[in-house]
Amino acid sequence: MENTAYIIDTFFTLFAMTLIIFMVPGFAMLEAGLVRTKNVSTVLTTNVMIYAVASMAFLLFGYSIAFGEFGSDAMSKWAVFLFQMAFVGKTINIMSGGVSERVKIMPLAIFTVIIGGFIYPIIVNITWGANFLADTFLALHMYDLAGSTVIHSTGGWALLAAILIVGPRRGRYRNGKIRVIPASNIPLVVLGALLLWIGWFGFNGGSVGSISTKENADAVALTIMNTNTAGLAGAIMGSFFMWFKYKKLDITMILNGALGGLVAVTAGPDLYNIYIPILIGAIGGTLVVFAVPFFDKLKLDDPVGALSVHLVNGIWGTLAVGIFASNGDDITFWGQLKGVLLIGVFAFAASYTVIFLINKFMPFRADDDDQQQGLDFTECGLESYPEFVRN
Amino acid sequence: MENTAYIIDTFFTLFAMTLIIFMVPGFAMLEAGLVRTKNVSTVLTTNVMIYAVASMAFLLFGYSIAFGEFGSDAMSKWAVFLFQMAFVGKTINIMSGGVSERVKIMPLAIFTVIIGGFIYPIIVNITWGANFLADTFLALHMYDLAGSTVIHSTGGWALLAAILIVGPRRGRYRNGKIRVIPASNIPLVVLGALLLWIGWFGFNGGSVGSISTKENADAVALTIMNTNTAGLAGAIMGSFFMWFKYKKLDITMILNGALGGLVAVTAGPDLYNIYIPILIGAIGGTLVVFAVPFFDKLKLDDPVGALSVHLVNGIWGTLAVGIFASNGDDITFWGQLKGVLLIGVFAFAASYTVIFLINKFMPFRADDDDQQQGLDFTECGLESYPEFVRN
Amino acid sequence: MENTAYIIDTFFTLFAMTLIIFMVPGFAMLEAGLVRTKNVSTVLTTNVMIYAVASMAFLLFGYSIAFGEFGSDAMSKWAVFLFQMAFVGKTINIMSGGVSERVKIMPLAIFTVIIGGFIYPIIVNITWGANFLADTFLALHMYDLAGSTVIHSTGGWALLAAILIVGPRRGRYRNGKIRVIPASNIPLVVLGALLLWIGWFGFNGGSVGSISTKENADAVALTIMNTNTAGLAGAIMGSFFMWFKYKKLDITMILNGALGGLVAVTAGPDLYNIYIPILIGAIGGTLVVFAVPFFDKLKLDDPVGALSVHLVNGIWGTLAVGIFASNGDDITFWGQLKGVLLIGVFAFAASYTVIFLINKFMPFRADDDDQQQGLDFTECGLESYPEFVRN
Repeated sequence: MENTAYIIDTFFTLFAMTLIIFMVPGFAMLEAGLVRTKNVSTVLTTNVMIYAVASMAFLLFGYSIAFGEFGSDAMSKWAVFLFQMAFVGKTINIMSGGVSERVKIMPLAIFTVIIGGFIYPIIVNITWGANFLADTFLALHMYDLAGSTVIHSTGGWALLAAILIVGPRRGRYRNGKIRVIPASNIPLVVLGALLLWIGWFGFNGGSVGSISTKENADAVALTIMNTNTAGLAGAIMGSFFMWFKYKKLDITMILNGALGGLVAVTAGPDLYNIYIPILIGAIGGTLVVFAVPFFDKLKLDDPVGALSVHLVNGIWGTLAVGIFASNGDDITFWGQLKGVLLIGVFAFAASYTVIFLINKFMPFRADDDDQQQGLDFTECGLESYPEFVRN
Repeated sequence: MENTAYIIDTFFTLFAMTLIIFMVPGFAMLEAGLVRTKNVSTVLTTNVMIYAVASMAFLLFGYSIAFGEFGSDAMSKWAVFLFQMAFVGKTINIMSGGVSERVKIMPLAIFTVIIGGFIYPIIVNITWGANFLADTFLALHMYDLAGSTVIHSTGGWALLAAILIVGPRRGRYRNGKIRVIPASNIPLVVLGALLLWIGWFGFNGGSVGSISTKENADAVALTIMNTNTAGLAGAIMGSFFMWFKYKKLDITMILNGALGGLVAVTAGPDLYNIYIPILIGAIGGTLVVFAVPFFDKLKLDDPVGALSVHLVNGIWGTLAVGIFASNGDDITFWGQLKGVLLIGVFAFAASYTVIFLINKFMPFRADDDDQQQGLDFTECGLESYPEFVRN
Repeated sequence: MENTAYIIDTFFTLFAMTLIIFMVPGFAMLEAGLVRTKNVSTVLTTNVMIYAVASMAFLLFGYSIAFGEFGSDAMSKWAVFLFQMAFVGKTINIMSGGVSERVKIMPLAIFTVIIGGFIYPIIVNITWGANFLADTFLALHMYDLAGSTVIHSTGGWALLAAILIVGPRRGRYRNGKIRVIPASNIPLVVLGALLLWIGWFGFNGGSVGSISTKENADAVALTIMNTNTAGLAGAIMGSFFMWFKYKKLDITMILNGALGGLVAVTAGPDLYNIYIPILIGAIGGTLVVFAVPFFDKLKLDDPVGALSVHLVNGIWGTLAVGIFASNGDDITFWGQLKGVLLIGVFAFAASYTVIFLINKFMPFRADDDDQQQGLDFTECGLESYPEFVRN
């Protein structure tokens, strides 16, 4: 029976990992659909680069920083590695998506090595990992099952640092007005968002860590159910606001509402009954709808809405655990808040410092001419849809 | 060992459910590829809306109508819910696809609540569920493993009702002639159909209900094998007819042939030897090829061929169980026919009534100007491919 | 416990098979993105045809030629069949992709019957199957876990035969110059390549054959980890060369680098420690970068780079087992080389003969006018993107 648990958990973890890897095309298609055609290949190349570079950095040193040696008694250590490796790129996807259409690939690749190999592993170390802060006053008592803070806020803080340093896209804010830049390929946006949704089942379900007892099997199923429910509620709430405000159903906002709900539930989907995620997801979707114009007012240019989806809802979701699942003992609102703040400060400060330094010797920002022409020309040397005449 | 069965079946059901969820992008991409570019976002938004609204309605009341309380001894009740929830939107996808390019999203959303929360759950109740008709003369003795009738015909009857009320697309039938309206994006059609095909493995394989005995493991594997075989045969038969009639291989018809074969085998893939599905699928593909022009002659305008794929083959597949797997005892041709008729009458009458009533206070049909301009403009307020110049 | 192994291995094999089926849309999207818009539907139809025809041929006679009767004690024989069936089309996908944009579908369909029903099954017979050569001097002692030679080189040799007979695309080599023909849809290329990548986890992981002991669970997880690592290394190496040579990151070359790494590791991912695949994949990616222009110099026109990815790396990967995992007993460099040569000679000679004969009575090559107009018009009778104006 012990071996059966080892076998089933190994298999289950490989299944969950595979679902997460569907998020690689998921992010790639979502972002390729949201940017203009002249920057599509740059965004796609960035996504593939992130998967390759971040995963390799995590294999070579990141994993050890987070967890120490490769090893596990409960299941195959290689499955454990693969599952953790599947996470690392996501943090950087969040960040890279939000600075699309003006950032070059090579400095991003260098940042990817550092965040994937050091910054993110340190955050994992103090939350899910070896925890070098365990005996200090900084020790965290935050419950974050699958990374509302560890993944989503971290990526969001890195993005905020990057936007502050890199600035908005050329021509986005001009004479006090915001220029609307429409998404170039809506089917890709929908495909990407739905692949992310499916990947989330693996992300959150797999984070339960085992399916090999009756209790764990229930916990995994409940986690996936609640994850999905929050996504549904986020999409419905996004639609609701679009309809009442504009009498139009903007699918990009509806999907960002769904993703906001998914981010928000990620900290504690195993802790809630089946109705709480409706509330958490609905609030998540609502936050996205209001955060998108808010960040635009602050001139924080984020073509894919990643600050609203990942940073805002990463914070909301982590605090929601303190509100809806506080047991006054292990899980408290203040424990959750402390985690949000401490990791926020570290993620932002570390990312800002590193991006600032890289930017000194290898600027992130493509100059105005290159942005005008499209980054695909200078970065990739090709066109994404060479045969289609453009407006 | 009891717990091991519980664990394995929970895991297996989550796996099957995940494959079915790939049908959400599957339907979305298929339909987005089949309609004109000016209606692509409306179709995509409709698909996302259906998943969100139907699943939420099923969570809040539909599941209880079908099955009573959440609960299961054999595996996690949350996995059981998720698997059943993954089905519900499909019925409405079938219906919404067939009235594409002229139907508005909000009345469809209201219909989605009613079919997903009431009509479909009642049909599930009397077939796979609590069965309130069990002791009456209407009690069904139909074998329908994964829903040739329960899902596909039901969606097809709802579509027929909708087409009768809503009418054809503007300009589709003019002066006694049928105007050919070509699909706008063939790669999306192929991607969508292949994702549906993969989703079918989860649909039918998961419907066996358990993999945790040797017999069930064989039944699941045979079910998936036979499901696939019928799809292969449908595709080959579709190609065959296209080639002999036109010397052209129209991929949209070939894929509809494959989908027709998949629908047809769905009622009994666990009951056949490995060769019967070749026949069932080949007939299914043939039916599609002849049904598509037949419905067009009747001026039943169905841009994606859903009547031919889902209604015709849903009926054929259910009757095929009576022909090829009748054991004269539990399974008889007449039992299958009774199920087809009774559910057909109920699904059509209920859908017609509800669509008729909704249509009175919130018309489904977009007016001619809006259809001319494209529904994306009025419904979604955006263009699906804003940078590509259109013919 | 015996039954538990049977159940778990059946489930695991169905999971692995499903991942491989994602390679069907994977190849379809990759190739549809790499060719010009006027040939997209022909490529897509070819891919669907190959899945349908090759799988059916394998069901009707190919499987018996390779393995004898349907049967297995270790797990459900239907799962075993499905897993093997998922492989067969891949060989032909490799071949058909490389002769895109000038080859007709019907002769390809006939060749598909013969390679899928006879040539490939014979190769499987002497490697993974019944092995009719077992007691002869030709008996192979090649280790090839998941088909660097059996699948990838075989497809590559068939492609080489086809290119020699069919010739290059009209206008590709003119006046001693090579005309660059750009890919028409980069997002589809990326989506396709990433689906192939995910499918590879099932291909290689499933080829371990069992997950139902602790040792096998480790072997499966290690296999998937090493498979992924080689892909990462191939992508990084491809990027590296593109950057140093052109200061541009051509995503099509980067992805071919990744695929080259994946092919190269496929012969022995279970045999290596976790660092060897970095080397094997890096060499694989490098080989692709240099092989693509090399084949172009030889005027072997291969629009998707399949010779470089599959033939060159299939050979490299099989020999790599002899270099990095030779135990001097079962596995030797010479045993690997003998396998490469013997299967190479057979696959090339058999494919050449069959293609030559089919070509006599039903020419593969579309004439220059049809190529000029695009094969979609003559082969499929439709346009892939009818509403988009073309340059």
